[in-house]
Amino acid sequence: MYIENVKSPTDVKKLSVDELKELSNEVRQALLKKLSVHGGHVGPNLGMVEATVALHYVFNSPVDKIVFDVSHQSYAHKMLTGRKKAFLRADKYDEVSGYSEPSESKHDFFVIGHTSTSVSLACGLAKARDLKGETGNVIAVIGDGSLSGGEAFEGLNNVAEQGTNLIVIVNDNQMSIAENHGGLYRNLQLLRETQGTASCNYFKAMGLDYIYVNDGNDVQALVDVFSQVKDIDHPIVVHINTLKGKGYRLAEVQKERFHYSIPFDLETGDPTVSLGNGEDYGDLTAKYLLQKMKKDKTVVGITAGTPAVFGFTASRRQEAGKQFVDVGIAEEHAVAMASAIAAGGGRPVFGVYSTFIQRAYDQLSQDLCINNNPALILVFWGGIESMDDVTHLCFFDIPLISNIPNMVYLAPTCREEYFAMLEWGLRQKEHPVAIRVPNNGVISRNVKPVKDYGAILNRYELVHRGKEVAIIGLGSYYQLAEEVVNKLKKERHVDATLINPRFITGIDGVLLDDLQMHHRLVVTLEDGVLDGGFGEKIARYYGPSQMRVLNYGVKKEFVDRFDLQQLMKKNRLTASQIAEDICVII
Amino acid sequence: MYIENVKSPTDVKKLSVDELKELSNEVRQALLKKLSVHGGHVGPNLGMVEATVALHYVFNSPVDKIVFDVSHQSYAHKMLTGRKKAFLRADKYDEVSGYSEPSESKHDFFVIGHTSTSVSLACGLAKARDLKGETGNVIAVIGDGSLSGGEAFEGLNNVAEQGTNLIVIVNDNQMSIAENHGGLYRNLQLLRETQGTASCNYFKAMGLDYIYVNDGNDVQALVDVFSQVKDIDHPIVVHINTLKGKGYRLAEVQKERFHYSIPFDLETGDPTVSLGNGEDYGDLTAKYLLQKMKKDKTVVGITAGTPAVFGFTASRRQEAGKQFVDVGIAEEHAVAMASAIAAGGGRPVFGVYSTFIQRAYDQLSQDLCINNNPALILVFWGGIESMDDVTHLCFFDIPLISNIPNMVYLAPTCREEYFAMLEWGLRQKEHPVAIRVPNNGVISRNVKPVKDYGAILNRYELVHRGKEVAIIGLGSYYQLAEEVVNKLKKERHVDATLINPRFITGIDGVLLDDLQMHHRLVVTLEDGVLDGGFGEKIARYYGPSQMRVLNYGVKKEFVDRFDLQQLMKKNRLTASQIAEDICVII
Repeated sequence: MYIENVKSPTDVKKLSVDELKELSNEVRQALLKKLSVHGGHVGPNLGMVEATVALHYVFNSPVDKIVFDVSHQSYAHKMLTGRKKAFLRADKYDEVSGYSEPSESKHDFFVIGHTSTSVSLACGLAKARDLKGETGNVIAVIGDGSLSGGEAFEGLNNVAEQGTNLIVIVNDNQMSIAENHGGLYRNLQLLRETQGTASCNYFKAMGLDYIYVNDGNDVQALVDVFSQVKDIDHPIVVHINTLKGKGYRLAEVQKERFHYSIPFDLETGDPTVSLGNGEDYGDLTAKYLLQKMKKDKTVVGITAGTPAVFGFTASRRQEAGKQFVDVGIAEEHAVAMASAIAAGGGRPVFGVYSTFIQRAYDQLSQDLCINNNPALILVFWGGIESMDDVTHLCFFDIPLISNIPNMVYLAPTCREEYFAMLEWGLRQKEHPVAIRVPNNGVISRNVKPVKDYGAILNRYELVHRGKEVAIIGLGSYYQLAEEVVNKLKKERHVDATLINPRFITGIDGVLLDDLQMHHRLVVTLEDGVLDGGFGEKIARYYGPSQMRVLNYGVKKEFVDRFDLQQLMKKNRLTASQIAEDICVII
Repeated sequence: MYIENVKSPTDVKKLSVDELKELSNEVRQALLKKLSVHGGHVGPNLGMVEATVALHYVFNSPVDKIVFDVSHQSYAHKMLTGRKKAFLRADKYDEVSGYSEPSESKHDFFVIGHTSTSVSLACGLAKARDLKGETGNVIAVIGDGSLSGGEAFEGLNNVAEQGTNLIVIVNDNQMSIAENHGGLYRNLQLLRETQGTASCNYFKAMGLDYIYVNDGNDVQALVDVFSQVKDIDHPIVVHINTLKGKGYRLAEVQKERFHYSIPFDLETGDPTVSLGNGEDYGDLTAKYLLQKMKKDKTVVGITAGTPAVFGFTASRRQEAGKQFVDVGIAEEHAVAMASAIAAGGGRPVFGVYSTFIQRAYDQLSQDLCINNNPALILVFWGGIESMDDVTHLCFFDIPLISNIPNMVYLAPTCREEYFAMLEWGLRQKEHPVAIRVPNNGVISRNVKPVKDYGAILNRYELVHRGKEVAIIGLGSYYQLAEEVVNKLKKERHVDATLINPRFITGIDGVLLDDLQMHHRLVVTLEDGVLDGGFGEKIARYYGPSQMRVLNYGVKKEFVDRFDLQQLMKKNRLTASQIAEDICVII
């Protein structure tokens, strides 16, 4: 076993190329074992094993600085930079994050999780090096999928101008999360087919030097090329052709399935853990939209590289045909295009994770909301408990979206309400509409269906009229509000009022004024950060009055791989804590 | 005069090519006259006259749809589409906006003012056309400067894949607002030098068809090429080489000076209106930073295509040398690069307009704040009265920036405080820091200089301790708070407390608790939108208490070319109105 002796990259450099191949095999086997037990990014990491080994053989990390784009392919790098136990020992599996993390190692320079940033970050490190008069290589490792994001282009455009040492490794595995989309990918294909010799070359057109490696999983070839470009005095792109999922047959074939996986059986590839009762809003949404598409040829689903977010599997994408567009990882384009489709009389539906919609704030504001076009955006996984990596937190979308004028941001509390809002959002022609898809499972409530949310804009649902205290439960936290109301009734004999606000973007002044008659306290519950959120607007509304207000949500802070129960308790988000706080005041 | 008879593009089509040339001259003369009297975008419009005339000669607007990027070059288009009076008659000059505006004409499809969006918007219009089974051309007109923004790349990448009719006119005038920056511009140069025949071609690398027009101010050549590409069944780039400022010698030579101009003398080019006492924070900041740069070689100024925002004129940029970087119109890259320069031990200062910082929310959150790197961002013109075009409003930066964890967003109230904060922001190594540069002129206050804002994080300045009511005046609205305090004292004999919060991103709980002793009302004043802003956090803090809170700022709405006094009054932002409201409560 070579891996056992690799305490740092120094130990990699002691090996022969044949031994590097053996080391690669060991890294791959360890990855496969951990991934099958623990889950994680499968395909991206398996494809990058040889390149990572070769990078650490040739370059001198951390003096030479490697920046991994998204950093979901940095597992082998972690194994070679002092963190191998977290891959070799099951009891240590959770000791490293799934992304690069400076607090773990001096070989990591940034916490990274969103796509297309590596070239810009490398550009900054190189600039700091140059300003300080230092030397050393700066290396960005970016996948072909990540090239579709605008920031990657902006970075490449600036690298050429900077003009000093910067090596961009383009890890071309011919896939994004799903398949790639865009004209650029024809050029990458041409470059692969011509062994990098085609004269029409995207990277050269950006003013960059360029070199191609046909087998990006061949350690010898990689070592040769990396040695050649090491200490180069100008920027260069090293385009390596790798196999996503390399060495695990199922992942090589089912590339989308094994981009990321929950724990799975190595033999069959089947998941070994269950994901609940199987009904989820993504799946339900795709079914619903496919029906709509059949009836109305102007309905079009849009994704920015993550079709699974709203249930558009490969077969459903095929079924939708021209009525489904994957723009690549390009949220800005997705929002602008959706706005323009709506302006042109189409019915666009952009499905997106909460953590990624923030990549398109300017487009939401400028292209969409100033123009007041009736595009529909479905924000999935918005809430505290959906993703717990600090780079993928899903609780900032309310401040981001709801403070933009003209936007109607809806917060359904159950299945029936979600589909009523979806139906209206798709049909109406008055407003840019976003829906925060519930994040607490598919729950049914016995609610009267609303046909026209435009006709009741910013009117809250008064579910139960009580007194003394009113609880406003927004979206996914409606059920928590119910729980608090029940608890107050049962344990404290308080008959609290229960409200489903439905609209995140507006204030129901009539209802709020009415509450002043028989209530002393209004409590807001939202599944997101407090700062800039929904509750603060209620606090502002009541500011000049005698009404007391308590806002619940999470504190403004970046948390990483948190214990959900602890976080909830810390923010006093359990029904008991909330009831307790209420009773102190009323 | 031909222009007098052009009521719509139909009338353009009746002319001969020689007459089109004469029409172009008339349009140019009218533009020059209006621009010199009224101010506006000079160079971009003068350069696009012939292309606009040719577009309307060949294409059939509005069935064929033209989308102008930024739309600051759409004046000639406005003249040819029923709005010529607003250019020919001085009393009508204000009847059109400086950007495309659907409410003015069916020939405009979007309100546009931020850069790099046209291709994505055109893509959406084309998609809607295709879904509806309609025909017609969709045309995006985009300048070479706008190509540096990531969204333009995302759009081009998707145009090729969409595959149907879409014509991208690249209006290459070899300039952005200032000079262009980036490797891409070498390729544009190569294409110009080779009459478009170079085999390494950025647009072809994106999978697009391509055609070059060497003289983009030659009506005949443009008519020929536009006729050739009209009704094409796939996307094509028409690269036209135009002269920025064409036909006005001073603008042809001083391209940066005449990108946009306030009213000027046609003979001399000198401004004919004064811009106040000449002292402004941009100019002062550049002088300050140049001094710093000389002492510390790691200090580096960064701009995203708008160096004037913090006083970096061409000569100052030259003086700064490698310590000043213009990344092109690429705010995402600018923020990520700044973060990485800080991580690498440099001292980056990114100067940016309030309206454009919103183009980089994800980078502020992910690249900068999660990583907690000590980069410094100077947000200029933040406030209600800086820009009044709906696309350039500068009052959304507080909700955008201040709700991101780890960020320290500072609001200086005067010259001394601004420079103390700038000094600290540049020196400290603990926090990402943004400063909202005052927007109400360079005002001096007799304040004790603070050396270390990190040591007093989130502690507000208690300027005057009174009772009953406390006024918190944030940043540019500190002077308004002073005015209210004086008014209350003089007219109502109320001794109000006056507070300068200094920090937008934090709550001074000790001070706020202390106020509860002798105050019944806390008033917040902020030069920005209320929703998601500073005041709401104060309202939330006091929510559970008996303290009354009044928040002042502007309502969440898009306003366009507003009357400042009216807007202030409507939002009850005059000192009299605020004092009046206060007296109703206390």
